[in-house]
Amino acid sequence: MDDGRYERGLAQLEAVSGPHGAQVVKSLADIAPDLGRYIVEFAYGDIFARPGLDMKTRELATVAALTAMGTATPQLKVHMQAALHVGADRREIIETVMQMIPYAGFPAALNAVAVARDVFAAA
Amino acid sequence: MDDGRYERGLAQLEAVSGPHGAQVVKSLADIAPDLGRYIVEFAYGDIFARPGLDMKTRELATVAALTAMGTATPQLKVHMQAALHVGADRREIIETVMQMIPYAGFPAALNAVAVARDVFAAA
Amino acid sequence: MDDGRYERGLAQLEAVSGPHGAQVVKSLADIAPDLGRYIVEFAYGDIFARPGLDMKTRELATVAALTAMGTATPQLKVHMQAALHVGADRREIIETVMQMIPYAGFPAALNAVAVARDVFAAA
Amino acid sequence: MDDGRYERGLAQLEAVSGPHGAQVVKSLADIAPDLGRYIVEFAYGDIFARPGLDMKTRELATVAALTAMGTATPQLKVHMQAALHVGADRREIIETVMQMIPYAGFPAALNAVAVARDVFAAA
Amino acid sequence: MDDGRYERGLAQLEAVSGPHGAQVVKSLADIAPDLGRYIVEFAYGDIFARPGLDMKTRELATVAALTAMGTATPQLKVHMQAALHVGADRREIIETVMQMIPYAGFPAALNAVAVARDVFAAA
Amino acid sequence: MDDGRYERGLAQLEAVSGPHGAQVVKSLADIAPDLGRYIVEFAYGDIFARPGLDMKTRELATVAALTAMGTATPQLKVHMQAALHVGADRREIIETVMQMIPYAGFPAALNAVAVARDVFAAA
Repeated sequence: MDDGRYERGLAQLEAVSGPHGAQVVKSLADIAPDLGRYIVEFAYGDIFARPGLDMKTRELATVAALTAMGTATPQLKVHMQAALHVGADRREIIETVMQMIPYAGFPAALNAVAVARDVFAAA
Repeated sequence: MDDGRYERGLAQLEAVSGPHGAQVVKSLADIAPDLGRYIVEFAYGDIFARPGLDMKTRELATVAALTAMGTATPQLKVHMQAALHVGADRREIIETVMQMIPYAGFPAALNAVAVARDVFAAA
Repeated sequence: MDDGRYERGLAQLEAVSGPHGAQVVKSLADIAPDLGRYIVEFAYGDIFARPGLDMKTRELATVAALTAMGTATPQLKVHMQAALHVGADRREIIETVMQMIPYAGFPAALNAVAVARDVFAAA
Repeated sequence: MDDGRYERGLAQLEAVSGPHGAQVVKSLADIAPDLGRYIVEFAYGDIFARPGLDMKTRELATVAALTAMGTATPQLKVHMQAALHVGADRREIIETVMQMIPYAGFPAALNAVAVARDVFAAA
Repeated sequence: MDDGRYERGLAQLEAVSGPHGAQVVKSLADIAPDLGRYIVEFAYGDIFARPGLDMKTRELATVAALTAMGTATPQLKVHMQAALHVGADRREIIETVMQMIPYAGFPAALNAVAVARDVFAAA
Repeated sequence: MDDGRYERGLAQLEAVSGPHGAQVVKSLADIAPDLGRYIVEFAYGDIFARPGLDMKTRELATVAALTAMGTATPQLKVHMQAALHVGADRREIIETVMQMIPYAGFPAALNAVAVARDVFAAA
């Protein structure tokens, strides 16, 4: 049944997120272990492992989307950490948030900057 | 009263969007001309003109966000055209949409791919 | 079983929306008649009939919310018509839409202005 | 003026939510008592009291929607408690959340699982 | 590389959606074939194939969520068709939409009923 | 380069929000000072300074939209404070929130009333 997606995904998750991503997956073991498995296999083993877009652009696109959606604060934090981990600098993260102002409004940007402050302080 | 924001914004809008962006602004002249003016001055003269993030990443981040939001089909079309205009290729646009699946779900990606098909057919 | 909510609601709906609101309710008769009944009884008989806020402010607040949500185009049309009907002028409707730019972004405002154009043309 | 909707709604609310729902209504007494009254009369007296769909399916559909919306954490908690109260088991609640992954993405599911963990711990 | 997920997913997709779902997947072949593949493998091969919740409840939960989200009209149509296909009747679909009124508002329900009218007319 | 937008915006911000709005701007100085500048220049210097709609209606429309969006709790607090500051009374704020029930549902209204309780307690 195994096609290497889980291993590929776990390696990808660690390469992208450092320790933070794996923690999220582990924290699901008691209540919804398959949710953690799908994150590894599908989000990282399938999607993040795709060619055609470099890892930094993938993470900045994700930061942009989560900023605009405004419903995913813990995940925005994980992906700001991941963006730093794959080579984005703080300015690029803030600029990605600023780019959202015309599309999603000031509250979305303000709330994302509050997340960035926490991420930068802990980095 | 003029500080060059409108001129800077118009030049930026044309550099980024080609003819499509200017059309949107012109189409507002009869009903909400200041809305068009703010798009030029603020979205392009202020935000897009900022250093710290290249134009292609700004446009892909915008495509990501509009895909995830799912409420801005006409604007997603304009920004997919703009992404092509500033040097993204079709594959990068599709990959940006695919990157949204784990964060915003399949319907958001499916509806964005339908927009991409129209944009690519007309390009 | 009748407490006059339906009659009060229907009178309120007609006072607020003119013929457009009643059409929406009638159009539900074949498939979900109770949905129409709840709109009359609850939205108009209960909520719109409340004291404490004048009808024009209620309708402009509704236009603001539907503009920002971006998922309710047909209802935004009905409430722009209603806003005109209860005494808002075109400028106040456009200003209410413009007020949404900093909170919900340009796409929300652009799509609402497109609805306003249709409403104003038919008025 | 009374048509029994409040009494019917209160009985329904208690049958569905146990003590948790009534607490929400009571907590509104000082600031917006009519909001509490409408929840009892309309949400429970009108909607939940309808035939055509059993109470467990109504609650699981509500859990699904609140999970996907991502803007209603306190209400998701109340409805996960209610789902347990009307006979859903923990697995069905988790499966309903998992079913949302393809439609609303992993962040929506992750945040709903965090709510479920609190609900299950307190049950 | 194959672990049977695609075959399991395709069988599940056909069992759940009849011909409509497979059409969506086929229509992606020219522009984003992997998007179609992920729908089959992940949405149907992984998620829909899970035990713990019957197919009718899965589809009604999906109808509930897509109704509440309001950004996925084409997908709501597919899942109303699928709900009928796996044994829900028209009344249960309408009731699921009605159940969303207190949580997502009347516009979401009105727009979903418009989709249901199309689905029922074509069934 | 200066056209008085910042000064006009700051005066407007203080007139509208009292001390609360300026605090938000100041708090951005360390991480995203231009975000604060754009709020002053664009949101207040451009949008709030427009004629055609009185300040109380602008603030109530903003309270309506932020209530309906459900993703901007800190900003809803600021604008409820501002609404009080420009002459709305508590009842008008609560009524604006109640007006959102039919359009955005009970959870949006419940969460906004919780914000109002905090604002009123501190006023």
